[in-house]
Amino acid sequence: MSGATVLAELDRIFHPKSVALLGASNKEGKIGRMFMERFLEMGFEQLYPVNPGESEILGVKAYRTVADIPDSVDLAIVVTPKDSVLAAVKECASKKVRGIVITTSGFGETGEKGRELEQELVRIARESGTRIIGPNCVGIYCPSSRLPFPLGPGKESGSVGVISQSGFFADFLTLTATGNGIAFSKAVSCGNESDLNAIDFFEYLGEDPQTQTIVSYLEGTKDGRRFYHISKEISKKKPIILWKGGRTEAGAKAVVSHTGALAGSRRVWDGALRQAGIISVKSFEEALDCLYAFHLQPLPKGRRVGIISGPGGTAVGTTDRCLELGLEVPALSMHTIERLKNVLPPVGGSVNNPIDVGLASLVAPAVYRDAIRIAAEDEGIDMLLVIANVGGKLLRDLILEATSNIELRKPLVVTVMGGPMQSVAQDFPLFLGSGISVYLDAARAAKALAMLWEHAQFRARGSAVQKVSEYGGRDNGPSGRGTDAIETALREGRTILSEHESKKILQAYGIPVTQERETTDEQGFKQALTEIGFPLVIKGGGADVGHKTERGLVYTDIRNPQEAMTAFEEIMKKANPGGGSILVQEMIKGTRELVAGFVRDVQFGPCVMFGLGGILTEIFQDISFRVAPIEKSEALDMIGEMKARNILEAVRGMPAADIDQLADIVMKVGKIGLEHPHIKEIDINPIILSKSGPIAVDALIVLEK
Amino acid sequence: MSGATVLAELDRIFHPKSVALLGASNKEGKIGRMFMERFLEMGFEQLYPVNPGESEILGVKAYRTVADIPDSVDLAIVVTPKDSVLAAVKECASKKVRGIVITTSGFGETGEKGRELEQELVRIARESGTRIIGPNCVGIYCPSSRLPFPLGPGKESGSVGVISQSGFFADFLTLTATGNGIAFSKAVSCGNESDLNAIDFFEYLGEDPQTQTIVSYLEGTKDGRRFYHISKEISKKKPIILWKGGRTEAGAKAVVSHTGALAGSRRVWDGALRQAGIISVKSFEEALDCLYAFHLQPLPKGRRVGIISGPGGTAVGTTDRCLELGLEVPALSMHTIERLKNVLPPVGGSVNNPIDVGLASLVAPAVYRDAIRIAAEDEGIDMLLVIANVGGKLLRDLILEATSNIELRKPLVVTVMGGPMQSVAQDFPLFLGSGISVYLDAARAAKALAMLWEHAQFRARGSAVQKVSEYGGRDNGPSGRGTDAIETALREGRTILSEHESKKILQAYGIPVTQERETTDEQGFKQALTEIGFPLVIKGGGADVGHKTERGLVYTDIRNPQEAMTAFEEIMKKANPGGGSILVQEMIKGTRELVAGFVRDVQFGPCVMFGLGGILTEIFQDISFRVAPIEKSEALDMIGEMKARNILEAVRGMPAADIDQLADIVMKVGKIGLEHPHIKEIDINPIILSKSGPIAVDALIVLEK
Repeated sequence: MSGATVLAELDRIFHPKSVALLGASNKEGKIGRMFMERFLEMGFEQLYPVNPGESEILGVKAYRTVADIPDSVDLAIVVTPKDSVLAAVKECASKKVRGIVITTSGFGETGEKGRELEQELVRIARESGTRIIGPNCVGIYCPSSRLPFPLGPGKESGSVGVISQSGFFADFLTLTATGNGIAFSKAVSCGNESDLNAIDFFEYLGEDPQTQTIVSYLEGTKDGRRFYHISKEISKKKPIILWKGGRTEAGAKAVVSHTGALAGSRRVWDGALRQAGIISVKSFEEALDCLYAFHLQPLPKGRRVGIISGPGGTAVGTTDRCLELGLEVPALSMHTIERLKNVLPPVGGSVNNPIDVGLASLVAPAVYRDAIRIAAEDEGIDMLLVIANVGGKLLRDLILEATSNIELRKPLVVTVMGGPMQSVAQDFPLFLGSGISVYLDAARAAKALAMLWEHAQFRARGSAVQKVSEYGGRDNGPSGRGTDAIETALREGRTILSEHESKKILQAYGIPVTQERETTDEQGFKQALTEIGFPLVIKGGGADVGHKTERGLVYTDIRNPQEAMTAFEEIMKKANPGGGSILVQEMIKGTRELVAGFVRDVQFGPCVMFGLGGILTEIFQDISFRVAPIEKSEALDMIGEMKARNILEAVRGMPAADIDQLADIVMKVGKIGLEHPHIKEIDINPIILSKSGPIAVDALIVLEK
Repeated sequence: MSGATVLAELDRIFHPKSVALLGASNKEGKIGRMFMERFLEMGFEQLYPVNPGESEILGVKAYRTVADIPDSVDLAIVVTPKDSVLAAVKECASKKVRGIVITTSGFGETGEKGRELEQELVRIARESGTRIIGPNCVGIYCPSSRLPFPLGPGKESGSVGVISQSGFFADFLTLTATGNGIAFSKAVSCGNESDLNAIDFFEYLGEDPQTQTIVSYLEGTKDGRRFYHISKEISKKKPIILWKGGRTEAGAKAVVSHTGALAGSRRVWDGALRQAGIISVKSFEEALDCLYAFHLQPLPKGRRVGIISGPGGTAVGTTDRCLELGLEVPALSMHTIERLKNVLPPVGGSVNNPIDVGLASLVAPAVYRDAIRIAAEDEGIDMLLVIANVGGKLLRDLILEATSNIELRKPLVVTVMGGPMQSVAQDFPLFLGSGISVYLDAARAAKALAMLWEHAQFRARGSAVQKVSEYGGRDNGPSGRGTDAIETALREGRTILSEHESKKILQAYGIPVTQERETTDEQGFKQALTEIGFPLVIKGGGADVGHKTERGLVYTDIRNPQEAMTAFEEIMKKANPGGGSILVQEMIKGTRELVAGFVRDVQFGPCVMFGLGGILTEIFQDISFRVAPIEKSEALDMIGEMKARNILEAVRGMPAADIDQLADIVMKVGKIGLEHPHIKEIDINPIILSKSGPIAVDALIVLEK
């Protein structure tokens, strides 16, 4: 189905003229009653409660069946018990309802039988051109259409969209943020995604002019690659804040029992989210914290934070936090310092960053306004973090006053301290409603700034880099090099290429590999020794010999013919009673080892991997994934993501690594995988950083028949 | 001065019969007015405002000078401008006031001149037996004595103590927590610590029967070792929650300008805090989160969390978080599952961990009570985390009901979701006041449980391990072995011991080192080759040759006499034109490298270090410090703290490391440093994990004259 069709369908579902509520009820404590109350509060006009046992519900005429409704119905909401859902869907399909929300649970999330029933519902609906949202969800919220959520966030219409695989997340997030002064355009709880799924809604809200910021909770997706492409396009214009549930193994277990979606590999998810420019959060609260920043603040031009604080101790701790988060808290310009001296108290404050406005700010808070304005006008400051010891309307107005005249907008976040939560809580709608991002704690305000800066870098990457080709990279050679080796292996029934075969393919794509010769007899071996030259490495075994090191089949740093012959004889004894091959390889010196690889992820398809190699790969797991193909800026970002990235600098007499060349290798690994549909995995480990550059010292290519 | 004296003095200062307020004022916006209002609100009786220009302040008779006060004065609070503080202190000293709080700033924190003035104040006071708190502080709060803080947390007396080097932290923390339902015993803002310092107050609150939990903000201390010993003793009975400001370089800069204290090395601080069992937090909010857990909940017996949640999505995310934090979310017993089936709704919930009480909990919240009770009675569950979609008195009472009958107390934390902050904020005093730890976000509740579990392990370490000796360890040899080498070096004017000298000392203490010979001529060299046997390592240079590897003076894996002679000649050429020595050393095979060391920290004195060694030491900085001497359990904790601790397991054909032996090495390094006051630093890097165990392959001892 074309995207345009879905978007048109969704637009009609989110803006229905008439709604039928199947399972509407007068009874307290029933979900059907809760929905009725919310619809009435919202003032939705063409509402048709359906309940065979009632003639009127909360004063609204009720109908026995959907067929009885005299009007056409755009949207049906089904809240009836599980056993009556099939009949309800049939009724709605006959009525040619545009969309059906099924809130009822007990379907796909419970097992195979539930999944079959779901498919039956979808089949019936789609025959009539009807779309289904759910089951096992809380439906859709669209204040401009007067469509409510069951907990009722409110009537006000705004520009934040929500897409959630958890009903509670959708309902609670809209409820909480609305209470705090942020209004929503559209929210959807997509439940089991029997028909319409989260990606459809991403596509829709990405285009929706009413929606400027998107918040989402996802546990899995059936098409990671489509999600990646769509969300990356959206991220270039609208921030997406996403909480991915099911990160860990036991979390993933809970996912299965919760919505039946696949959780996928967490590392691949993390890489794909970063690559798509998604703001990834780890809790409900962090989702709100990011929403308050991304929805209200511009993106910063740099990482330099100006801190303006009443509490001195908190200023110190918050400076720590900013630096830990990769932000800077630089010295202010002399001009700024002079200006601050004119407004700050002579004693007890600090005119440099962090700016301490002193105890006097408690009784004379206007100093906040002056310090904010002065710091904001310092060209060396990109963002402002205010930690106030006063709150309320007074502070709100001082901040609005301070920022009203600033032509060049910079992000500003505020922490209000020093009161019981009830009093500070009152400041939230006051501040957020006025466009000021407010936090209960300065450490969280600092985190929000760091997230803004990270997203600003994504936006910059997107605009600075020109998309060279589908695969990117310096390499412009023909496609599909090395196909012969792959076809040979498959013909021989092998799914593993030997180290030597694997490296030949890498080499064909311009990835530097060790000089080496493969041989099967003594004569060839001796010739190889001469060609390669000492010191060298001798490895036993052909394609099907794994774990060479553990099996004692690797002899490194062989320095002369005697040592070489000893190694030859030992390998022949241990590994090659029935023949096989021996690899003679130049010895690469270097203690810094990296890894690059390629996998086909179950959710995201072809992906590349890069990180710390050798024995440490498993121990530190300092690796990252990206969806292939990757652009150069993305390869550089992977390299920058390494915790051990210092290893790439000049260390102990070894030169710094050529980062461009490393980026090139990662891009090429992706290219190889993409050009060979039979390649399942590529593993280059280690890539040793030698004096002359990175060299692939060992490699393995795994095929899929 | 003896500790007992200070405690008696502090007791009188915290419980004064009479208070003089120097700088009391009728004028709005003055700190002297603020204090007056607070004293009157608290109902303090014998209050003597002092102000030469007023006869009465807010209805209380005022005095021109302290001398004019007809009664004796226990405590004076000085809020006058800087220039009049000296006179004020003189007046108070003449009156034999017990303690003076000086809130005024502009002293030691501004530089040398300010520090001198401070010392003068202290000298005058101490001559009359008077103690000073401050300057540059907000003083002391003690509701049972009716002593207020300027922002006025309230009258209610409780059992939380606060010690802070930031006035705002002390005042805001007490204010916020009191508003949320937690009451305090005593709080002190110690400012510049010209006389009484944070450690004095720790000693006092450690003994204070009124105080059960301590919260603190520190930026530095003048005697880290005393702080370490006192806080460790306290931690065995009362939890200390501490925010250490000034972690990072720029943070540390801010520290200097803020209180003039030394910030010390962050890594040493982190190690000392952990060793002392202190609950280390990184923000104001985290301090409160921990306070709510530690003050109200028992310590858990294990790490197994039972999650009871209304929102399903949040249950998934919170399970993730628990596992990331090192907690477990195990399956429930069959018995528990059967019991849960009887109380949970048949559809939409989950009877296993995380327990999903389903959508129905919104309308029938009694299911929370039943699920909590059942989960708490499962012997496989150590702690409970409740995520509620309802709040208020109803939920509070259900939780109290559920937990009232449980004999075996387990920590229980609650997150209330799904409302604007104003409504959830109201639940805080309601829940905390009833002894229920409540959080705005489940991720933070999970963190609080993880902190409880970590502290429970500290308590277990303390009680399980018997203190063998001052130095601990297996080693029972005589003290001060290796003194000769140190004396020789000092006599020769050297502050660096050669690798060989250093290793001899290590060996004398039973630390396994490489077999090696030091020689200066060819004959001795050849003999050494025979004695050590190939393969071996040849290193050039004696005591004063640093950076051997970078200078090309290390030849590893020498396999035969020819290679050895080549190395010998090259070293002689490069390094030893004026003589010197050559080290012939056995070659240790192994790719896993560790580091152990000893330093004298400026704040904490003798400390040991342990972590990942070799080239990776600087890159990963995967190291930790502890204050020496350390007990075995503490050495094991250091090893467990390594991020790369997997490296100690069996890897790629190499056996697992002997953890006891590693612990022994770290303890012995501490012992060596403690027994030799001339040793400034010890650096053993690398310790290679060979097949036969850990071996010190390189070592360096630095002396202090």
